[in-house]
Amino acid sequence: MPSTNRCGQRSRAAESRPHPPPSPIPASRQPRTCQAASELGAYKWEDAGKAPAVPRIAAVSLEMSAGLVHIKNPHLEAMDEDVLYHLDLGTKTHDLPAMFGDVKFVCVGGSPNRMRSFAQFMHKELGLEGDGEDLADICAGTDRYAMYRVGPVLSISHGMGIPSVSIMLHELIKLLHHAKCRDVTIIRIGTSGGLGVQAGSVVITDRAVDARFQPRFEQVVLGDVVVRGTDLDGGLVEELLACSEAIPDFPTLVGHTMCTYDFYEGQGRLDGALCSFSNEKKLQYLKRAHDAGVRNIEMESTAFAALCGPCGLRAAVVCVTLLDRLEGDQIRASHEVLQEYQQRPQRLVAAFIRRRLGLRTAAGNTRPSSD
Amino acid sequence: MPSTNRCGQRSRAAESRPHPPPSPIPASRQPRTCQAASELGAYKWEDAGKAPAVPRIAAVSLEMSAGLVHIKNPHLEAMDEDVLYHLDLGTKTHDLPAMFGDVKFVCVGGSPNRMRSFAQFMHKELGLEGDGEDLADICAGTDRYAMYRVGPVLSISHGMGIPSVSIMLHELIKLLHHAKCRDVTIIRIGTSGGLGVQAGSVVITDRAVDARFQPRFEQVVLGDVVVRGTDLDGGLVEELLACSEAIPDFPTLVGHTMCTYDFYEGQGRLDGALCSFSNEKKLQYLKRAHDAGVRNIEMESTAFAALCGPCGLRAAVVCVTLLDRLEGDQIRASHEVLQEYQQRPQRLVAAFIRRRLGLRTAAGNTRPSSD
Repeated sequence: MPSTNRCGQRSRAAESRPHPPPSPIPASRQPRTCQAASELGAYKWEDAGKAPAVPRIAAVSLEMSAGLVHIKNPHLEAMDEDVLYHLDLGTKTHDLPAMFGDVKFVCVGGSPNRMRSFAQFMHKELGLEGDGEDLADICAGTDRYAMYRVGPVLSISHGMGIPSVSIMLHELIKLLHHAKCRDVTIIRIGTSGGLGVQAGSVVITDRAVDARFQPRFEQVVLGDVVVRGTDLDGGLVEELLACSEAIPDFPTLVGHTMCTYDFYEGQGRLDGALCSFSNEKKLQYLKRAHDAGVRNIEMESTAFAALCGPCGLRAAVVCVTLLDRLEGDQIRASHEVLQEYQQRPQRLVAAFIRRRLGLRTAAGNTRPSSD
Repeated sequence: MPSTNRCGQRSRAAESRPHPPPSPIPASRQPRTCQAASELGAYKWEDAGKAPAVPRIAAVSLEMSAGLVHIKNPHLEAMDEDVLYHLDLGTKTHDLPAMFGDVKFVCVGGSPNRMRSFAQFMHKELGLEGDGEDLADICAGTDRYAMYRVGPVLSISHGMGIPSVSIMLHELIKLLHHAKCRDVTIIRIGTSGGLGVQAGSVVITDRAVDARFQPRFEQVVLGDVVVRGTDLDGGLVEELLACSEAIPDFPTLVGHTMCTYDFYEGQGRLDGALCSFSNEKKLQYLKRAHDAGVRNIEMESTAFAALCGPCGLRAAVVCVTLLDRLEGDQIRASHEVLQEYQQRPQRLVAAFIRRRLGLRTAAGNTRPSSD
């Protein structure tokens, strides 16, 4: 597979520079190594999340500092109990600080099987003991979402679409807040339709935009439309792009990601149960999107960005493209090809986490097992 | 549990008539019995879906008649193959007419476990051989949705929210079209928050409305807003209400159902990770909704109505309320209580299907096993 394509894999496609060298990462955005990293390249679970050995007043001061997960809700602190209904967890039924206090990386994706597969892959990548095959679903009491924990990494499914990912994120953010997590990075690893990029390309999102190519997330609150920004973490984009450079034959680009409420008409597909437009109109729309810098289309990124950023989570979106929408609508690649495509965001994010933890790099050269 | 409450269970709450007698069912809407029904009260699988013994020309004429599932898409007939990606089915890989041609009832709900439980329950209610414990998931090749078939009944999960249910419905409607299904009734059996009704009430939706209480479904298509109606089948509402009358201690009402894109702020909850309004503003909004005839709130009904109706499916929505939103936001009932609540729409729809099939009524007095 070629390492570049006509829209500039490994490049900042949205800025219309086809093949520039990757930008250097500013010192402030350099990967932060974790003291728990061992020279053998394995993550030491027992070193994670230890409370700092500081006096109580200093600890309180630390809690007030940046890095904590924020809740933007003045009502929450007055609640005697918080039931995280769709995760089957709660503040009175579970010791959330003990269960999650040392989580540093949260990876989310649509499919429960894929997020289990990712957790098993991370188990190997972190060099943890055992084969990771018997990982327990922390949300086993519900089938709404699946959640797995591997060292400092939490892997959670979110279903399909903005409402589904929003429910999960509201409860996840509250979970991380109740658990007093600090300096959490959250990455969505998903699938998408490409725009002018070859199938199998990995798109790192620099901007999540709506169906009119605007970086905004509209929501109806008490009957009124509220508009929120969809900023993602620019430093994370650079870090992820740098990680992709070290993986051979790994087509990667940076671009805008369009987020829609519908997979068929909402993404200009001609193959739904309903369709009221022509192929010509469809292509005009998709080309307008491409001209605006959109390189892939999915169904969660604007809400993901709008919810995570304000709550103090450094957020990124990494999606593989399953087809080029300028060439068709139906996903017809074989099961095996699609499986390999879907592993690519997992490989990149695993390489990123290993780099952050200062582990000797496998740099995405190993691959997850099939879902 | 009392059989009525302050908002008029078993009544047409949205029309502000607290306790009227149920309307008589017009002759044209009387349950249509199925010739396959046996006097023993068991559905005969082998009689279902037999091709009519008519000459070819007459058969073609029949195909043109009402009752077939319509596709509102002129592009589809030109397609050589239709891959129903999220169902892991397709026109070239599966004999859809043989697999689904005699389906008459489609029941959909959010949770895959619940839809499996419903299929097993229907297996017993139809008096089919075996215990139904080993029902195979027809969509086992994907974890996006789960699908089970029991006699003329298809039970499918749709995940949470409009985008998720829309993807499933587009592919389901195409499946029913390719399979040449005829006279299909589709019912969503779900959970919801109640408005001024006691927890555990079953709401039969007479009108699906958006977050501004309007019977409309807005969708962005090629960057433009398209507005569609959300009509549901009035005759089905009457039939379902009549079925509920025969089930003892079964609080049921007819009312408007509000469909939102968000579970937290979008439904006026104070307990999300973000909340920018006061308890007073929340209650003002919920009371306005109640005054407009809304009796429960969920996240799929407008899209469900907007997609099913135009395609020739007779559609209904039957949801149980898990709490009264005028009294709180968090779902805190015990697992056992919630399980029993969630079985209520299943019991009502099972009674309805048995009545339609002319089976000797068990009328919802039996209960599904737990999920």
